[in-house]
Amino acid sequence: MNETSLYALLRPLRILVLGYGNVTQAFLPLLVSRSEWLGRELGIHPLISGIGTRSGGFFVHPTGITPEQLAQKTEARTWFASQSMQVRDATAFIQAGRSAGTSLLLELTTLQPRDGEPALTHIRTALQHGMDVITANKGPVAHAQNALQALARQRDVQFRFESTVMDGLPLINLAQFTLQAVEIRAFRALLNTTSGLVLSMLEQGFTLEQAILKAQQLGVAESDPWYDLDGWDAVMKTTILANNLLDAHITPAMVEREGIRDITSEDIFAAALSGAPLRLVSSASRVRGMVTASVRPQPIKADDILHVAKGTTSVISLDTEAMGTITLVEHEPLVLQTAYGVLSDLITIFRQKRST
Amino acid sequence: MNETSLYALLRPLRILVLGYGNVTQAFLPLLVSRSEWLGRELGIHPLISGIGTRSGGFFVHPTGITPEQLAQKTEARTWFASQSMQVRDATAFIQAGRSAGTSLLLELTTLQPRDGEPALTHIRTALQHGMDVITANKGPVAHAQNALQALARQRDVQFRFESTVMDGLPLINLAQFTLQAVEIRAFRALLNTTSGLVLSMLEQGFTLEQAILKAQQLGVAESDPWYDLDGWDAVMKTTILANNLLDAHITPAMVEREGIRDITSEDIFAAALSGAPLRLVSSASRVRGMVTASVRPQPIKADDILHVAKGTTSVISLDTEAMGTITLVEHEPLVLQTAYGVLSDLITIFRQKRST
Repeated sequence: MNETSLYALLRPLRILVLGYGNVTQAFLPLLVSRSEWLGRELGIHPLISGIGTRSGGFFVHPTGITPEQLAQKTEARTWFASQSMQVRDATAFIQAGRSAGTSLLLELTTLQPRDGEPALTHIRTALQHGMDVITANKGPVAHAQNALQALARQRDVQFRFESTVMDGLPLINLAQFTLQAVEIRAFRALLNTTSGLVLSMLEQGFTLEQAILKAQQLGVAESDPWYDLDGWDAVMKTTILANNLLDAHITPAMVEREGIRDITSEDIFAAALSGAPLRLVSSASRVRGMVTASVRPQPIKADDILHVAKGTTSVISLDTEAMGTITLVEHEPLVLQTAYGVLSDLITIFRQKRST
Repeated sequence: MNETSLYALLRPLRILVLGYGNVTQAFLPLLVSRSEWLGRELGIHPLISGIGTRSGGFFVHPTGITPEQLAQKTEARTWFASQSMQVRDATAFIQAGRSAGTSLLLELTTLQPRDGEPALTHIRTALQHGMDVITANKGPVAHAQNALQALARQRDVQFRFESTVMDGLPLINLAQFTLQAVEIRAFRALLNTTSGLVLSMLEQGFTLEQAILKAQQLGVAESDPWYDLDGWDAVMKTTILANNLLDAHITPAMVEREGIRDITSEDIFAAALSGAPLRLVSSASRVRGMVTASVRPQPIKADDILHVAKGTTSVISLDTEAMGTITLVEHEPLVLQTAYGVLSDLITIFRQKRST
């Protein structure tokens, strides 16, 4: 059988993409590089049937463009728009995409932490239209995971979000697929890169402005760095992990939060000199059925496993009931790791479909 | 519906157990504690239909005994024998078990490293009889995984061995279920606890005899401690990981091996004093399609992630293509963690069955 006829046997997977930032731009070439794998292992070939952004508009293509074609264009988004039909807004985008046979929405817009909007509405709309949804956006998951998953179950579709915490490191999937029948009782983690980088630069005598600038240059800081430094990013991640690893039902408002805003340079120097530098620790634990969670600066001694997180490295240590303590370290991730998290969700969705 | 009638809806899972050492004795109570979970999630209730050991004989029960009943006896194995029919040898044991409706063999005998026998024959016989097999025994996996898996596929059954490396830490499953479509290019790991313990005690001025005694008291050393110290245990684990994480096809003889036998106390002290103590490092990497693997003593600097492995803690660092570097640490595992690895294989087998 020649290549063309093999290709014809594959099922098209039409994808809508909301957001065209770093993650989307890393995801599209990753999808190209996994094209052969997706065909061989899952029997699908992906097509991009829509790209939408708030600033650039919402565009839907009637049959879908292969990621390979897109990857050949220097201005891929503009070129895609030129081939497509523009629609009014995100809701019209999802409806038009659904009519064109799209079954998957990637919600990759940037975070709006207060209430997770407008991503939350995008996700709800897509699920209501019977589409699977993958998001890398912490907001909607931290604020409304339960409601969104109930909706997904009702419509017999999936809602996945592996890349919201520690990028593509399999953390949600670890609990779901490989640590079955084991209770995770607690975790401690360093999940916010910006605060770690800023604290370590302050220890070295740099100013706060220099430290923030560095984190922004590395592309790890949120557009408002205080979102990181006041602990909000860590709160969102802690909420998601508590709900998914510890089976809690909490919202971000229930996580005790203390950022690094009020720590003095004296405190920072003294802690570092004593060998136990301050870092923004996320933790949660279940005690007599109740899960409590917090984000706060804590001294990290040299013999603490969290001490391994240098630079942009993140770490989580799980205290489990039958498997003792397990630690996972993600060393200096780049945006490719976040994009892989999205791909791994896509793969999981199709593996699960095949198994039901 | 009352409890009795619910129980009647569950499918019996009859299990043969070969070997009655630490792992089996930790597995049986674990199975009791997971009884409700297995019923609810997988719709099965386990029954022990045979226990066999070389020294104590091979016993098969016609209908199977619940783990709960067994757990109530102080001399569980003797009591089981008194309720059962004795058969000649392991082959007769497997045949009689199969006739009594057993579908799963747990091969938990102790390791014979040279050729993996007699465990290898046990496993082959059970697979040939159409039984799923789980083993915690490195020998047969390191020596004959390919042949055994081919046989399993042919008989439409499964052969799993998560607990052969780093106990129940999901390493084989991580690669199979949560790091899909990602090439693991290399790994470095400290997998042999005895050599690490012995080296650290030699650094503190203890004699080799004292160090070996301590490892034996902790229950981590193989019956012949030189099997650990000459690197054979690490070679078996390295072979299994290279074949399963790096998709290699190697046998233990193809792993370059250098144990700690020939290291002088001077070398050990000097390395420790310089801040980079010697440890027995397992590593493998794929270069231009070829996988090479080795086990040898190497200095571990303070900024090396392997440095986190103190005491009986083990660590592995994976160098991947799309997910960068990921490290997993298992902190001071006990035999319960090995038993959990066996349970997690049992769960995976039933999840997989349900999905086909």
